[in-house]
Amino acid sequence: MSVLVLTEQEIRQVAELDESTLTQVEQAFTWLDQGLVSMPPVMHIEVDEQSDVDIKGAYVKGQAAFAVKMASGFFGNAEQGLPTGSGMVVLLSAETGFCQCVFLDNGYLTDLRTGLAGAVSARHLAPEHVDTVGVLGAGAQARYQVESLKLVRDFNRVLVSGRSAENQQRYATEMADRLGVDVAVADSAEQLVKESQVVVTTTPSRAPVLSADWIHPGLHITAMGSDLPGKQELDPVILGSADLVVCDSRAQCEIGGELQHGVRIGAIDAADVVELGRVTSGQHPGRQTSEQITVSDLTGTGVQDTAIALATYAAAVAKGCGTTV
Amino acid sequence: MSVLVLTEQEIRQVAELDESTLTQVEQAFTWLDQGLVSMPPVMHIEVDEQSDVDIKGAYVKGQAAFAVKMASGFFGNAEQGLPTGSGMVVLLSAETGFCQCVFLDNGYLTDLRTGLAGAVSARHLAPEHVDTVGVLGAGAQARYQVESLKLVRDFNRVLVSGRSAENQQRYATEMADRLGVDVAVADSAEQLVKESQVVVTTTPSRAPVLSADWIHPGLHITAMGSDLPGKQELDPVILGSADLVVCDSRAQCEIGGELQHGVRIGAIDAADVVELGRVTSGQHPGRQTSEQITVSDLTGTGVQDTAIALATYAAAVAKGCGTTV
Repeated sequence: MSVLVLTEQEIRQVAELDESTLTQVEQAFTWLDQGLVSMPPVMHIEVDEQSDVDIKGAYVKGQAAFAVKMASGFFGNAEQGLPTGSGMVVLLSAETGFCQCVFLDNGYLTDLRTGLAGAVSARHLAPEHVDTVGVLGAGAQARYQVESLKLVRDFNRVLVSGRSAENQQRYATEMADRLGVDVAVADSAEQLVKESQVVVTTTPSRAPVLSADWIHPGLHITAMGSDLPGKQELDPVILGSADLVVCDSRAQCEIGGELQHGVRIGAIDAADVVELGRVTSGQHPGRQTSEQITVSDLTGTGVQDTAIALATYAAAVAKGCGTTV
Repeated sequence: MSVLVLTEQEIRQVAELDESTLTQVEQAFTWLDQGLVSMPPVMHIEVDEQSDVDIKGAYVKGQAAFAVKMASGFFGNAEQGLPTGSGMVVLLSAETGFCQCVFLDNGYLTDLRTGLAGAVSARHLAPEHVDTVGVLGAGAQARYQVESLKLVRDFNRVLVSGRSAENQQRYATEMADRLGVDVAVADSAEQLVKESQVVVTTTPSRAPVLSADWIHPGLHITAMGSDLPGKQELDPVILGSADLVVCDSRAQCEIGGELQHGVRIGAIDAADVVELGRVTSGQHPGRQTSEQITVSDLTGTGVQDTAIALATYAAAVAKGCGTTV
């Protein structure tokens, strides 16, 4: 049995933030809605207080292979000048169980599929006309989320609010250059939310960073930072007052997403939350008026990892990338 | 970040059934007993009725790296002349979370650490003098278990009982040659148990293959086939009548081992079952008289995967094996 091994550099050559990978990630949510996916709960290995690994994976009926993904968060890495997040993906044959491809992506594919899930949400939930996008957090996902959004909405201004003046400024300079739009540091989170039509929260917070007082008609919020019990970015009252709350996986969001807090305080009934696949499959219309307030609660699902791995494997094979061992 | 990639052939050159790997697997159980191990429940991806993948892993405090292992069972493979079990192991740095080594072992390391866990059990639980070893099943683990046992007990006869006359005969010929002992096909499972001092069950059964009527003083049973809900090899009455029941992980055995059935019918209280690490660490004496009846219930634990991966990685680095990408 031969196995294709792809390095991060090779993967970056064949998998990018573009229309094609966006379509593939959108497909993942539709597969979930169609009942085609066998996806166990996330496996979590605790290393110490600031280090852990999440393992996700999913088989999609009819697909020739499926992925198992390891995503690590080692927050002590920053002191050594290393990225805190890394990881790798393995593709196994759905016909024989043998390993087919190893993606030594150091977390790049996770960054990609996570950013694109935000764009999939916004495609169906953000208002048609977006002038300003606000992003809370100034790390890697603040970049992937906003760059992905550009695929679905033609905004011309970004407001950023991060933890340090230095990070915010670096973000503004980098992203203005990359996207060709005006990127400014917000005076406050409040100003950022009030002046934006789309807000993306990308922080590792364990308490609300976004107040219910700042919400206004026509706003779409994508909350992607919370993916574990105890994490939280939104005042849960927001979930109760929104016109439409969507989540990637109800089972996961009830455990680790914003939904955990919304349900706990009784602001929302989990049964009223729509899974994103309902919307991507056309079974639910998504946003219906320009005045609605919408929220998307994203925790990241194994089926996204399978979707991006399948697409990347196909592209690598087509271009003859990688080493066969 | 460079990653070492090892093929099955390279892994077979540095990891064998020997005293050194036996010691490493024994150490794994002691680590568990010492409370050094962070080991989540097994993750299970269902592909179809006869195909699935189990994912196991564990971090051991103080160790520089930890493993995540995928083990697949695709029973349709037999029709294509392929082994039904395969898999791979990934070693991640416990300091940074980055991938350190990829073992493309096709299930070999799982076979090894599973066989060796049987030998660890027998070292502490089998009677000192073993003349005959009986093995139910004639597949890969029937080979690994009996070969591993040779490291801890100097038996001179093996009785085998498998599903087909052809498999049994092939097993007998192969193993007689490999171990230099007499290997015979048993007339029945009953005869096999009655004439053996150690019996190993290695079947994928979902109903007892070993009757309580056949048990005799001085017998040690290692039941390693059952590792999922619904699987079963022993009449659960045996667990109640044994003098000592040991399991690799109480949490896992209550879900997928023989313990699930023993507890269900009230034959045994889970609190009376001793974890193997209690014995390997010297906190429990194991077998104390030649007349005791002992049972070892093994489901296979992630910490065994980490132990064998650490040892294999160290050996590969020392010998300069593998490809760095």
